[in-house]
Amino acid sequence: MNILITSGGTSEKIDDVRHLTNHATGRLGKEIALALKEESLAIHYVHGPQAVLPDNQNCQFYPIASVKELYNIMETLLTTISFDYVIHSMAVSDYELDVATDEELLAKKIAEDVLKNSFETPEDLTTIIKNSLLHSDNIPQNKQKKISSKNDKLILMMKKAPKIIGHIKQWQPNTYLIGFKLLVDVPEENLVSVAQESIVKNHADLILANDLIHIKDSQHLALLISKDGIEQRYTTKKEIAQGIKKIIVSK
Amino acid sequence: MNILITSGGTSEKIDDVRHLTNHATGRLGKEIALALKEESLAIHYVHGPQAVLPDNQNCQFYPIASVKELYNIMETLLTTISFDYVIHSMAVSDYELDVATDEELLAKKIAEDVLKNSFETPEDLTTIIKNSLLHSDNIPQNKQKKISSKNDKLILMMKKAPKIIGHIKQWQPNTYLIGFKLLVDVPEENLVSVAQESIVKNHADLILANDLIHIKDSQHLALLISKDGIEQRYTTKKEIAQGIKKIIVSK
Repeated sequence: MNILITSGGTSEKIDDVRHLTNHATGRLGKEIALALKEESLAIHYVHGPQAVLPDNQNCQFYPIASVKELYNIMETLLTTISFDYVIHSMAVSDYELDVATDEELLAKKIAEDVLKNSFETPEDLTTIIKNSLLHSDNIPQNKQKKISSKNDKLILMMKKAPKIIGHIKQWQPNTYLIGFKLLVDVPEENLVSVAQESIVKNHADLILANDLIHIKDSQHLALLISKDGIEQRYTTKKEIAQGIKKIIVSK
Repeated sequence: MNILITSGGTSEKIDDVRHLTNHATGRLGKEIALALKEESLAIHYVHGPQAVLPDNQNCQFYPIASVKELYNIMETLLTTISFDYVIHSMAVSDYELDVATDEELLAKKIAEDVLKNSFETPEDLTTIIKNSLLHSDNIPQNKQKKISSKNDKLILMMKKAPKIIGHIKQWQPNTYLIGFKLLVDVPEENLVSVAQESIVKNHADLILANDLIHIKDSQHLALLISKDGIEQRYTTKKEIAQGIKKIIVSK
């Protein structure tokens, strides 16, 4: 049986020194891999730069940093190997860098766009400026290897990164997909509805939904959500890992 | 003898999940603390979230994340304890978050500022927009705990963070300050001149200058710069640590 686990967080490069990342530690993915240690499984383990790794001889490791790198390795794996399960626990950045600029360069570009277009109402002007910001691939870029700190502002224009979870069933329609959703300080009904939207949109089979305010030290509250609603409740990473193991072993 | 070492990198919070950080590992600060293990020193060790830590019983640890937290702990330490040496090897972010916004909110704010001011030339218009960007504390802020990904752009307006190295001699004029400067892919003469500018500007006694392209695995080329020029050349972290130990022991 082949399993694909993603774990940890992605890291988007701003320049050769700086990067934008998230607080994912990879501890949950590690627990899941360890829970599956006894089974005769081949685990393909894709992980972010800071992720703690499981000591599991059945694991083959694929390190990635950016969402783009994650996309490439996931596409390669899912179009060449048949996976029984994909456990996509990685915290993937919603945004990637479009351009790093400063107040001088950005003001000049917006002024040019305003002067090129005529406007009558304040709403027209807002639309022109909004379009100027949306086309930030045209904004003069600070291409220094380490962006100098001479300007008062460093302006990071981030664009949407590809949604990896949305591609998994496109690459491999017959795999069983367990996705993960992290929100912060929301009511439980929101957690459930957001998870169910993800099930529909991404053709996921199950979503493990959790709230950052309920993840502390050894505690890790989580809900396993199907299209029908809450299937299971967990209170620790070990319980989550055992719950996922049970799904895999019982099928 | 009291020594203050800073090590690792800072991390600026974007929201409860995301943060902007750098590639500093803290390995160099760790080597320096380990080199000083045999000496009867009290080491106060301020470190970033991802930094590897030395196993040295003489060390008292102070974890920080943001530049603001670093500023506060450094001010407290340097105004209450007399330090013989400050070894400031931490990679401190030049910028901190001013506001996280999106194309809708930012366009509206710039349009308002343009309509409030009259302009005749393209340069006038650029200046109005530049001032609008500079006053980004007025820009409507995305205050969600986890910024949602519904907008096409996430625009991070970063402002200058306080320069910690510039405050050290203000807080404690009589300490001996060894600063660190990291550049990327520059000629050696630039490294020397930038280090010497830092010595003048920040009243540093020595600057350890290094270039990211010469830091790989076990290799770590670095120059020890004084106001007179290059004092020493090092090729590994251990050599740098021994070099700094020699300065401290010989004085």
